[in-house]
Amino acid sequence: MSREQRQLVLRKGRLELESCRLPRRPAGYARIRVLLAGICNTDLELQRGYYGFEGVPGHEFVGEVVECDDRRLLGARVVGEINLACGRCEWCLRKLGRHCPVRKVLGIVGHPGAMSEYLTLPERNLHRVPDSVSDEQAVFVEPLAAAAEILDQVRLPKEGSVAVLGDGKLGILVAKWLLHRGASVRHYGRHRSKLALTAADGAEITVSARRPRAAHDLVIEATGSPQGLADAVRLCRPRGTVVMKSTVHGSVALDTAPVIVDEITLVGSRCGRMEVALRALRHHDFGLEQMISAVLPLERAGEAFELAQRRGIRKVLLRPVR
Amino acid sequence: MSREQRQLVLRKGRLELESCRLPRRPAGYARIRVLLAGICNTDLELQRGYYGFEGVPGHEFVGEVVECDDRRLLGARVVGEINLACGRCEWCLRKLGRHCPVRKVLGIVGHPGAMSEYLTLPERNLHRVPDSVSDEQAVFVEPLAAAAEILDQVRLPKEGSVAVLGDGKLGILVAKWLLHRGASVRHYGRHRSKLALTAADGAEITVSARRPRAAHDLVIEATGSPQGLADAVRLCRPRGTVVMKSTVHGSVALDTAPVIVDEITLVGSRCGRMEVALRALRHHDFGLEQMISAVLPLERAGEAFELAQRRGIRKVLLRPVR
Repeated sequence: MSREQRQLVLRKGRLELESCRLPRRPAGYARIRVLLAGICNTDLELQRGYYGFEGVPGHEFVGEVVECDDRRLLGARVVGEINLACGRCEWCLRKLGRHCPVRKVLGIVGHPGAMSEYLTLPERNLHRVPDSVSDEQAVFVEPLAAAAEILDQVRLPKEGSVAVLGDGKLGILVAKWLLHRGASVRHYGRHRSKLALTAADGAEITVSARRPRAAHDLVIEATGSPQGLADAVRLCRPRGTVVMKSTVHGSVALDTAPVIVDEITLVGSRCGRMEVALRALRHHDFGLEQMISAVLPLERAGEAFELAQRRGIRKVLLRPVR
Repeated sequence: MSREQRQLVLRKGRLELESCRLPRRPAGYARIRVLLAGICNTDLELQRGYYGFEGVPGHEFVGEVVECDDRRLLGARVVGEINLACGRCEWCLRKLGRHCPVRKVLGIVGHPGAMSEYLTLPERNLHRVPDSVSDEQAVFVEPLAAAAEILDQVRLPKEGSVAVLGDGKLGILVAKWLLHRGASVRHYGRHRSKLALTAADGAEITVSARRPRAAHDLVIEATGSPQGLADAVRLCRPRGTVVMKSTVHGSVALDTAPVIVDEITLVGSRCGRMEVALRALRHHDFGLEQMISAVLPLERAGEAFELAQRRGIRKVLLRPVR
């Protein structure tokens, strides 16, 4: 194994492919050869210069362990929790290390990400990928866990359909997850071609560029747009719940009066438990491979990032291996 | 009883005292002579022209039944639910008439309010005031019920203090209610003299004009300011809850990223159950009379509205009886 690696570096909004020495592997960490890395909307926001990020982006990946302390992991195909938590604080002891106040986050905060030939992660962050799950499916475990997180936070309504607002990658995964978990789903979006992916799984779909109005007990906001939250509130009944999945940069304008008068609950929702997503993938085909629009080598990352922002494009993956 | 009455009318932001014939009393409605009416921040917002309100304002009152169908009510001293619900829809059948989609609201939406010698309300909206409760206490039942509503929606955290943000009238009532219900309360505000009212009940207080930062499991936002929600989020821990009590006109700028990353829940909260507030008032002295800054006759309503907006002023009441 070479002691050099190629990695993608984001610096002042520019992506550059660099060669560098392999970084040190701290005790308790594994070195992982990245097989596939996904481009997420957060990566596009990092590229736009939000959050002042500099470094190697990428937090969706599947890889193979090439160095580690725990020899049983050697050679294992893995995905990994993106939050590097201290392991000792109150949050970590409650198994909520993803809220650890001193955490680093793979490819987002203080730890080099997956758009590289190799990455390091604490061994305790890793989950083995079952043989029945392909690389192309496994790279979706992180966003699928984020979709699954919703049902760790709120209950499905006893009757009526759940609204999913937004037909981007996360919206589709959310709709697919809820359908898998037995919900009746009404999926609102702007692209018939994207909504077709969830219609095939049983969602009722509403294609509209206008702001729909309805009365759902549970609405999932996954538009990725600053307007999405207000639209989600319009879709929600009195005493209903809106789950906020879209991180958007800067402030969102929210008319709080309908939230208060209708006593709506808004629930912020972020990362989820990977083991839950992996367990489901073992037995259920979410049609994830159909969500992949392109797989490009790491040296074409610039092109891949451009492609990922284009209308009608689903997931774009990078393959760092030469 | 005269068939004429004096009433305060708000028209294009101007308050005028008018004499008019008593309006018809529909079947099932009681006519109530108003003993005291409170000026609420919502009334001040109506006066500023928000919501395009025209008519008789006022939804906080205590009065005496002078005409009714149910003879047992005649002469009773009462307070009344402000939502005039249809009584037949799904919400009404779930005892949540305050979310009835075709409701009118006393002094706010489509039904003349309490700043008048007489008002009408459905008999089923009325609650008798026990003899041990004074008029000056009873006029607080509506806002006290709104404070009580919080604990119908969320649970008190098992440990640590609840933060109440805002030392206006509602903030004080919220802090007093939570203390009454056994919570440990940290009350944040800008006026030592107002916070003294809850400190006397056992609240720990923080007087500061700056935006405080803390880590509470439960934060009640009752500032009445558009900046309040962002401040409340800063006071909240990951996975904590912010209860939104302040209706403010127009849009509020909210950075949704901390809400999502920290998975915070925001709960809109409005009116509450009057019977709960009345039951508590029977046995517990909330020191409500100390919250009254002035009681003025109806013909001095203009002055009373001005006074109610002045810094350091607590509750201003109107007494319609000549």
